[in-house]
Amino acid sequence: MQPGPRPAAALAEGPLNESELKKLHAFWRAANYLSVGQIYLLANPLLREPLQAKHIKPRLLGHWGTTPGLNFLYAHLNRVIKARDLDAIFICGPGHGGPAMVANAYLEGTYSEVYPAVGRDVIGLQRLFRQFSFPGGIPSHDAPETPGSIHEGGELGYALTHAYGAAFDNPDLKVFCVVGDGEAETGPLAASWHSDKFLNPITDGAVLPILHLNGYKIANPTILARIPESELRQLLEGYGHMPYIIEGDDPMDMHQRMAALLELVLDEIAEIQGAARKKKRATRPRWPMIVMRTPKGWTGPKEVDGLPVEGTWRSHQVPVDNVAKPEHLRILSEWLRSYRPEELFDDNGALVAELAELPPTGRRRMSANPHANGGELTQELRLPDFRDFASKVEKPGTTFDEATKILGQFLRDVIAQNPRIFRLMGPDETASNRLSAVFDVTNRTWLAETLPVDDHLAPDGRVMEVLSEHLCQGWLEGYLLTGRHGLFTCYEAFIH
Amino acid sequence: MQPGPRPAAALAEGPLNESELKKLHAFWRAANYLSVGQIYLLANPLLREPLQAKHIKPRLLGHWGTTPGLNFLYAHLNRVIKARDLDAIFICGPGHGGPAMVANAYLEGTYSEVYPAVGRDVIGLQRLFRQFSFPGGIPSHDAPETPGSIHEGGELGYALTHAYGAAFDNPDLKVFCVVGDGEAETGPLAASWHSDKFLNPITDGAVLPILHLNGYKIANPTILARIPESELRQLLEGYGHMPYIIEGDDPMDMHQRMAALLELVLDEIAEIQGAARKKKRATRPRWPMIVMRTPKGWTGPKEVDGLPVEGTWRSHQVPVDNVAKPEHLRILSEWLRSYRPEELFDDNGALVAELAELPPTGRRRMSANPHANGGELTQELRLPDFRDFASKVEKPGTTFDEATKILGQFLRDVIAQNPRIFRLMGPDETASNRLSAVFDVTNRTWLAETLPVDDHLAPDGRVMEVLSEHLCQGWLEGYLLTGRHGLFTCYEAFIH
Repeated sequence: MQPGPRPAAALAEGPLNESELKKLHAFWRAANYLSVGQIYLLANPLLREPLQAKHIKPRLLGHWGTTPGLNFLYAHLNRVIKARDLDAIFICGPGHGGPAMVANAYLEGTYSEVYPAVGRDVIGLQRLFRQFSFPGGIPSHDAPETPGSIHEGGELGYALTHAYGAAFDNPDLKVFCVVGDGEAETGPLAASWHSDKFLNPITDGAVLPILHLNGYKIANPTILARIPESELRQLLEGYGHMPYIIEGDDPMDMHQRMAALLELVLDEIAEIQGAARKKKRATRPRWPMIVMRTPKGWTGPKEVDGLPVEGTWRSHQVPVDNVAKPEHLRILSEWLRSYRPEELFDDNGALVAELAELPPTGRRRMSANPHANGGELTQELRLPDFRDFASKVEKPGTTFDEATKILGQFLRDVIAQNPRIFRLMGPDETASNRLSAVFDVTNRTWLAETLPVDDHLAPDGRVMEVLSEHLCQGWLEGYLLTGRHGLFTCYEAFIH
Repeated sequence: MQPGPRPAAALAEGPLNESELKKLHAFWRAANYLSVGQIYLLANPLLREPLQAKHIKPRLLGHWGTTPGLNFLYAHLNRVIKARDLDAIFICGPGHGGPAMVANAYLEGTYSEVYPAVGRDVIGLQRLFRQFSFPGGIPSHDAPETPGSIHEGGELGYALTHAYGAAFDNPDLKVFCVVGDGEAETGPLAASWHSDKFLNPITDGAVLPILHLNGYKIANPTILARIPESELRQLLEGYGHMPYIIEGDDPMDMHQRMAALLELVLDEIAEIQGAARKKKRATRPRWPMIVMRTPKGWTGPKEVDGLPVEGTWRSHQVPVDNVAKPEHLRILSEWLRSYRPEELFDDNGALVAELAELPPTGRRRMSANPHANGGELTQELRLPDFRDFASKVEKPGTTFDEATKILGQFLRDVIAQNPRIFRLMGPDETASNRLSAVFDVTNRTWLAETLPVDDHLAPDGRVMEVLSEHLCQGWLEGYLLTGRHGLFTCYEAFIH
C-alpha cells in the first residue's frame, strides 16, 4: 500500500511515439494561442493580417503566468483520460487561470455547446477573445460559468478541499487538482493537505494533487519554490504523500516525462484502490502527487524592454503591454505567431481535425463531466417527517428537552436513509453540539491511526470532523457542488 | 548553522540535582492544584476541611486537558529564564489554557500585584478560585486581562504568528510558543510554520515552538498525534525546523529530560544567533523546536465511572462532574489532595518560601514581561507632515495623480524615520497597490533562497509579504501588541 519511488529510468523512456508527441504539443500550442488571444485580441483572431495596435484590447487585464502550465497539464490529462477511459474532473487552483480553462473548454467543443454564439469558427474565435475580461463579457478567473468548473478563482486556498469534497463517495472519480505555489502559502491550503487522512480508498474516489511551482506570485517568489528540494519533499511526505517532482522547460522533453509520470501515478492510484477494494480493508495509503516546476509564463516573451520576463514574476499578468510601442507590438506578434495558428485552425477557423479528435468526447471531457455540474447528478435527499420528532408536551411548562438533541435524532435518520449522499461536517463539535444520536448509525471518518479508547472512528463514517472550519467548509462545498447534500455544524460565531 | 540532532545520551543525563528536581516538581504541583481549584472550588481552597459538595461550583466550566502540560512547560521555562537571565514571553496557543496562565501569574505574584483583591493568602486563593469562569469573574480562556498574555484563546490558529510578530525587531527576546495539536489542524497555524522564512537571526528575536501533542481535541484524536512519528518529523523538518521529540508520563523522568532538552535548544538558538551576529550575515537556519507528547489531563483522574479519563479526550474539559455522587466527590478530593497542598502553601495560604523564590523576579517573570504589555514599551511613531505630500493642483481638473502612489511616498518616509518600529504587511500586493515608493528605502523581508532576478528581497526588509492574509494579520497583531506599529494593506474584500 505504500509504493516507493520507481527507478528514474522508468521516467526517462518516453511513452509517446513521434506522432503522438507532435499532436500533443500542437494541442498545447492551440490552448496557449487561445489563451494569449483572449488576453490580447479584439480582432484579427487568426492573424490573417499583420497584427496592428487596433486589433488589441485597449485595456489589458488577464493572467498569463500560470496559464501555459495549466494548458500543459490539461492536454496531458486529456491523453490519459482517453487512454484509460477515466471519469475525471479538473480543479484549477490558480485562481487567475481563466484563459486556460476557457481555452480548453473551447477546444473540446463544450464551450460552443453551452454558448452557441461562441462557435468553432472565425467569428466564434473573435467572440471568444473579445469577451474575456471585457465589459459585458466573462471574468478573467475560472468562474461558475466556465464549463467544467466547480472552483471559483479569487479567494485562494480551497482547491484541495474542493477536490476532496468532490471525491468523497465518488469511488470511480479522479480529481486532478492543480495547486498554485501562491495559493499554497494560504492557511486553508496548508491545512488541507491533511485531507488525505479522510479519504477512503474503497468508497471514495482519488485526488491527484499537482503542485505547480512556477516560482512567483505577483511580484515575489513563492516560499515552496525557494526551499531546498529535500525540504519540500519532507514537507509533502510529512503531509502523507509520495511526491514525484518533475522539472524542466524543454517542451518535448517535458511532454515525454509528464506522459510517463502520469502513467506511473495513475498506476499507483489504481494499485492502491484495487488492493483496498479487493481486501475490503481501508487503510491510509501514501497517495502519489506531482510537483511540476516549470517557468512562469512558459513559452511567453523571454525579454521585454531589456528585462527578463519568461520565468519571472513579470509574466504574472500581461507580460508585454503598451502595444502602441512598435517594439512591444512586434514582441506580441512574434509570440502569438510562435504557436503557428495557421497549422492549428482550418480555413473556417475550426480546430484542425487531427487535433479536434485528441480530447475525450461527450461526458468524458473534463469541461463536460457531469460531476462538475452537480445539478445533473443531484439525487433528492430523503427526509423523514420532522413531525415524528416533535417533543411530546402533555401539559404546558412541564416538558424539558434539548433542541439540538432532537435535531441529532432527525439527522440520524437522514443519514440512515441517505447512506451515500449526505455528510455532516464540523470542527469536532458534533457531540458537544448534542447531535450524538447520529453515532447510533454512523461514525466519524478517520483513516489515521486509532486506539481502543477512541470514540466512533472508522474509515467510512458520515461525520467529518477536523479542527479547521476552512476544511469543513471547503469539503462541504466540493461535496455539494458535485450534487450531494450535507450540513456544517459549529458554534463558532465566525462561521455564521 | 544547521546543527544535527545530539546523541540521545545527552538527554538521558538529567541536569537537575535532587533538590532542584523536588522543588521544580512541587512548583508544578502548585500550579496544577491552583488550576483544578479554579475549575472546581468555591470554598475550602486549601482543603483544610473534608471536601463537600457545597464547596464545589454548581456549574463546572473550564478546561483541564491542556492545563497540566502548560503548567509543566511554564515551570521549566521559568527555570531556564532564571538560569540564563532570559527576556522571554509565553504564548499559550491552547485557547482553553486559562487556568494554567492564571495559576502561574498568581504563583509569580504578578496576579496579586495587578489585582490586589486576589492576594497571596487564603482569602485571595478563595477569590482566585471563585472568579474563574464564574458570573462577574474572569473568562475560562487566556484573555487580555490575564497578566503576561498577548494571545487571546478562542478562535484558534494564531499562536505562532503572534509569537513571530512579537519576536520581530526584538533581538533579545525569546518567545516560547505552545501550539496545541488541536490548533495545529487549523489553516492559519498550518501555514504559519513557514514564518521561519521571515525571521532574521540578527535583528529579530527567537521563537521556540513547542508542539504539545496531548492527542485529543474535544472528542476526537488529533491528526498530528496519529501519524507515524517519522511522518511528523518529516512534516516539521519540511517546515524548516529541527524538531526534538520528548514523550512520557513519568513526572520525574520527564522533568530531567525536559530540563536537558531546554538547555539543548536554548544553546542551539544562542549558537544560531551568535554566529549570524558575529558574521553579520543573516541566512535561514534550521531553528530548533520541541514536540512534547504527554497525556491529556496528565495527573488527573485515571478513571471515572469505569471509563479511562487521563490520557483520553474525556479529560478535555471537566474530567469528573456531578459531585453530588459520593464516588465523584471522592475522586475529586483525592485528585486535589494528590498535589499535597499542605506542603505548598503556608498557614496564611501563601506559597511556601522555597517555592516562591523559584520563578524569575520583576520584569523577568513571563507574567510581568513588559513585551507582553505593549503599552509599557510603545514608542511614538514619527510621522511626516501629510501636507508635504499634497498633490499640487495648479488649475482645477488638470492634475492627475494616484492616491495610493502618494500614500506610498508617505509610507516611505514613515519607514525611513522609524527604522525598527514600523512594518508594512501584505499578501504580495505592495507594488500592485502602487506603494512601491517604499522600496526606495527598504526591501521585502526574505530569508529563503533568492535569485538575481528577484526584486527587493533582503533579510532585513520592512515589508512583509506572504500570500496568507492570516499570517499578515497574525504577525501584525503580535507586532502591535508588543508595542510597535504597522499597517496591513490588501485589496481583498474579505480583510476589510
